[in-house]
Amino acid sequence: MTLLNCVHPLFGFFIFYLHLRMAAQILDGKKLATEILVDLKARAEALPATPGLAVIVVGMDPASASYVGQKKRAAEAVGIHFEECAFPETVTTDELLLTIAQLNHRADVHGFIVQLPLPAQVDKTAVLAAVNIDKDVDGFHPGNHGQNILNIPTALAPATPAGIMRMLDHYKIDLTGQEVVVVGHSNIVGKPMAMMLINRDATVTVCHQFTRDLAAHTKNADIVISATGVPGLIQKDMIKKGAIIVDVGCSKVKNRLVGDVDFEAVEQIASYITPVPGGVGPMTVAMLMEHVIRCAERADI
Amino acid sequence: MTLLNCVHPLFGFFIFYLHLRMAAQILDGKKLATEILVDLKARAEALPATPGLAVIVVGMDPASASYVGQKKRAAEAVGIHFEECAFPETVTTDELLLTIAQLNHRADVHGFIVQLPLPAQVDKTAVLAAVNIDKDVDGFHPGNHGQNILNIPTALAPATPAGIMRMLDHYKIDLTGQEVVVVGHSNIVGKPMAMMLINRDATVTVCHQFTRDLAAHTKNADIVISATGVPGLIQKDMIKKGAIIVDVGCSKVKNRLVGDVDFEAVEQIASYITPVPGGVGPMTVAMLMEHVIRCAERADI
Repeated sequence: MTLLNCVHPLFGFFIFYLHLRMAAQILDGKKLATEILVDLKARAEALPATPGLAVIVVGMDPASASYVGQKKRAAEAVGIHFEECAFPETVTTDELLLTIAQLNHRADVHGFIVQLPLPAQVDKTAVLAAVNIDKDVDGFHPGNHGQNILNIPTALAPATPAGIMRMLDHYKIDLTGQEVVVVGHSNIVGKPMAMMLINRDATVTVCHQFTRDLAAHTKNADIVISATGVPGLIQKDMIKKGAIIVDVGCSKVKNRLVGDVDFEAVEQIASYITPVPGGVGPMTVAMLMEHVIRCAERADI
Repeated sequence: MTLLNCVHPLFGFFIFYLHLRMAAQILDGKKLATEILVDLKARAEALPATPGLAVIVVGMDPASASYVGQKKRAAEAVGIHFEECAFPETVTTDELLLTIAQLNHRADVHGFIVQLPLPAQVDKTAVLAAVNIDKDVDGFHPGNHGQNILNIPTALAPATPAGIMRMLDHYKIDLTGQEVVVVGHSNIVGKPMAMMLINRDATVTVCHQFTRDLAAHTKNADIVISATGVPGLIQKDMIKKGAIIVDVGCSKVKNRLVGDVDFEAVEQIASYITPVPGGVGPMTVAMLMEHVIRCAERADI
């Protein structure tokens, strides 16, 4: 009893210290994406011809240039031929539609994307709808959005939410009946993300800049997926202990990439969390490459 | 003062009585739908040819027969030629695809629908995707779902959520920043309904049979839209005072049509409520007819 009386208070303090230091498990998108690219390389090598990816880039936006560079490196790692179609900021809708029509018909281009954002004079809706649905590796064509909402397996789902789903599945995070809050209601993340989660029987709330009380929703969420581009939007006091946090934000603050989530604080109470960079970004690129391989495999049939 | 002292207690009781008796305003879908059909009749008469609607019906389901009958009466009221393509319960996917191919090409058929449900042996996904997207007046084709999610004006949006949006707009119910709970996550109501509300900047939660605590969500909702087919699912103690209640349910209980909502109790505390029948149902039919006229007007260009 003497020993127990002596050890007990210290042991309690140790447990308390451990609790304070306990950080969330990292959802390592970079590592998982690398593994996916290795698998894709084997699939690319099994194809009768080199798979091809083209990227239409308008203007000289440094963020766009960086994203295109990431895609190029991933394509080279997989063995996908990469082609950049560059246009000046002054490009017209018709010029883009002409190039899209050519890419739609080229047998050596199995998938292509139109790098967003596009300048204001371009009719974005017309441009994205002109992409051959079977080469639409970004998953931005209305037909692919529709197949995604209907949970049709042939869908080329929007790449970012597809990457998030793959990551959650990899870490065996069950979604059925989970309370999920998606923050942001964009066409390329928020809305398709919500659809994919609903298709997996999660209870999904979509919040955005018009939401009256964001914290009231996030505090009750088992999973929070934030895609707003507002640095520090998601704070520690807005989430419940043990929540899973997926950060799609990617903003430059003082020359450093940061997400929507106050990572240092939130990781202390979350159970899983994605880092920025190294979380969702590499998964998006990996899904793009997987879509190119899928398109090339389909074309081979 | 003597009079006031005398009147006051009675007046207070009267106000209390009024409060107890105060029922929600009815969202009168039947009346609104009738008005819409009158407008559509004028548009139909302005067309150079009679607009045409065909309905593919499989089997002898009495509910389906009743819905088809409603559509036929509405078409006749508008001046739309109505044609029924009936198949036995044993129909194959290929037989339906053949008829769909014919309807896709007929110049006198401006829109057509495949009445759901279809028997198990039919590939529903293939059948719905085969409908010419420009004649898909039900709005069930993946391309129309996708245009709806992207808020593209040319979308033929799924008819039931389109009818609900029209009704909410008619009663000048603002959606921006409102807390809306959609109960049910079907392809034809729950999912497209959520997308349309999100496109109008509502904060939207989609609940369903896997939701752990439905009441926790509905109690905080400004608007509840229930589309489950579970009679009596939405009870008075599950909604907040002044909420707006839209009941998409339509079940037969003891030979009487009932919705998902306990109408008699809920109307005492809601601010607006749809009746069943006479709420969402007629609006769905009116949206179908509007889609036929829109398709005929487009074909005329």
